[in-house]
Amino acid sequence: MTNSPAPADQHDHLFRVIYRDTDQMGMVYYANYFAYMEMGRVELMRAKGSSYRELEESGIFIPVVHAQCDYRRPARYDDLLRLRTTLVLLTRVRLHFRYQLHHDGRAELLATGETHHVFTGRDQRPVRVPPQVLEMLSRPVLG
Amino acid sequence: MTNSPAPADQHDHLFRVIYRDTDQMGMVYYANYFAYMEMGRVELMRAKGSSYRELEESGIFIPVVHAQCDYRRPARYDDLLRLRTTLVLLTRVRLHFRYQLHHDGRAELLATGETHHVFTGRDQRPVRVPPQVLEMLSRPVLG
Amino acid sequence: MTNSPAPADQHDHLFRVIYRDTDQMGMVYYANYFAYMEMGRVELMRAKGSSYRELEESGIFIPVVHAQCDYRRPARYDDLLRLRTTLVLLTRVRLHFRYQLHHDGRAELLATGETHHVFTGRDQRPVRVPPQVLEMLSRPVLG
Amino acid sequence: MTNSPAPADQHDHLFRVIYRDTDQMGMVYYANYFAYMEMGRVELMRAKGSSYRELEESGIFIPVVHAQCDYRRPARYDDLLRLRTTLVLLTRVRLHFRYQLHHDGRAELLATGETHHVFTGRDQRPVRVPPQVLEMLSRPVLG
Repeated sequence: MTNSPAPADQHDHLFRVIYRDTDQMGMVYYANYFAYMEMGRVELMRAKGSSYRELEESGIFIPVVHAQCDYRRPARYDDLLRLRTTLVLLTRVRLHFRYQLHHDGRAELLATGETHHVFTGRDQRPVRVPPQVLEMLSRPVLG
Repeated sequence: MTNSPAPADQHDHLFRVIYRDTDQMGMVYYANYFAYMEMGRVELMRAKGSSYRELEESGIFIPVVHAQCDYRRPARYDDLLRLRTTLVLLTRVRLHFRYQLHHDGRAELLATGETHHVFTGRDQRPVRVPPQVLEMLSRPVLG
Repeated sequence: MTNSPAPADQHDHLFRVIYRDTDQMGMVYYANYFAYMEMGRVELMRAKGSSYRELEESGIFIPVVHAQCDYRRPARYDDLLRLRTTLVLLTRVRLHFRYQLHHDGRAELLATGETHHVFTGRDQRPVRVPPQVLEMLSRPVLG
Repeated sequence: MTNSPAPADQHDHLFRVIYRDTDQMGMVYYANYFAYMEMGRVELMRAKGSSYRELEESGIFIPVVHAQCDYRRPARYDDLLRLRTTLVLLTRVRLHFRYQLHHDGRAELLATGETHHVFTGRDQRPVRVPPQVLEMLSRPVLG
């Protein structure tokens, strides 16, 4: 039931660090990397032509059950960052994303992360998503 | 229909500044003062023996229609702050709160603020609240 | 010493509401509008060819001394918003910005806001900025 | 050089969920659990008679290099939560904390987490902390 991830299963999102994201060490506050990851996976889904908002409106939710981040080099105020999000696992009951954060145009990794999600209904109970949802999420990222 | 504010219409809330609240200037990020104000008014309501959560569960919402803050002296990481919240206006259609932020035990004002709220139903349309809600919010703060 | 605002003193910034910005009412949390305003004024300055980060590096800070927002219609998860930021006052000691928030492509206002700033040095004491800073901030927005 | 964790190496912190912590699913937004963890470890250190702020002022910083969270049951608006923080590893170069989040007075776990930290100087390079810092962080939690 697993669809193995194709290279077309990743998306780069560019964004700038604003003041609210920093802390008094002058770096992005560690919890905010998880907000960036959310932005990354939503934009990956949008790039696949699918919309998290519409999924929710159809009664399918994708809460996080596990999240982790490894911090290697600090990101700072006004930095232009590039977040690469990859869909690494997709089944009818779960989804895993992996994240790599860089300064735009530079190779060194600032941080890597991972989030695991399950599909649920409005009542927050696990569900198996219908084939058409699986198909939608399996689509390659639009060029 | 206005209940003029008694001295019993105010509440002091003590809290500590954590890292997520600061920015790289080493001060509390300006938007976070509004989150503090939310904490202040919820605790004022709780001190009156009323609960914002229960109000919501009964179908009455109190969205903010206006918010403002004047910043005088910076608050910093790990500071112990005292926020005084005062209910300054209460009618069947609206509520106003005023806020004064100090370092605990010190007289100088760090910031002052104000928020204006209306009562709405679940559909976000304005409502006139029933007398018992008005009565509940008019109760003096418990000693 | 005041430079009256030209039409060239405004900038539109487009962005999308992410989950972290919403609250359980399903709307953007009221404090987050102030983070949006920060994004708006930083992008306005960037569009003028000036950079808040470089200003800070040169020892000039622009803390907020007053902020206010009027909330008219809710903004929601995944909405594409357009924030118009206008520099409405600029002197050697202070700066005022005004903000108008819309759904992209729609005329109705979601919210309006204002922030007032003073110029300070690293020690947080007010300063009069040198003419070249004033000149830089007075430049028209790049086409 | 590792001090094995005593039962005295843990601290419970009680706090209430405010609106800004929730998202439109009506639950605490997943990134905010990491802000809670920060509060937990700072309060653990304070309960040991040591202060993160003073550590920083003495030139020792404790940035996060790894963070993770497992989400089991949702926490919601106005919930009174109890966060248990345990110091599970302490050497001259690193610190690990573990976290368990409950509703106050209930046994079921809402979430568990872990953060790993290194000691650095102001320049963000790793340092070995002096014995007196190790001693300070090893102290039992004050009754």
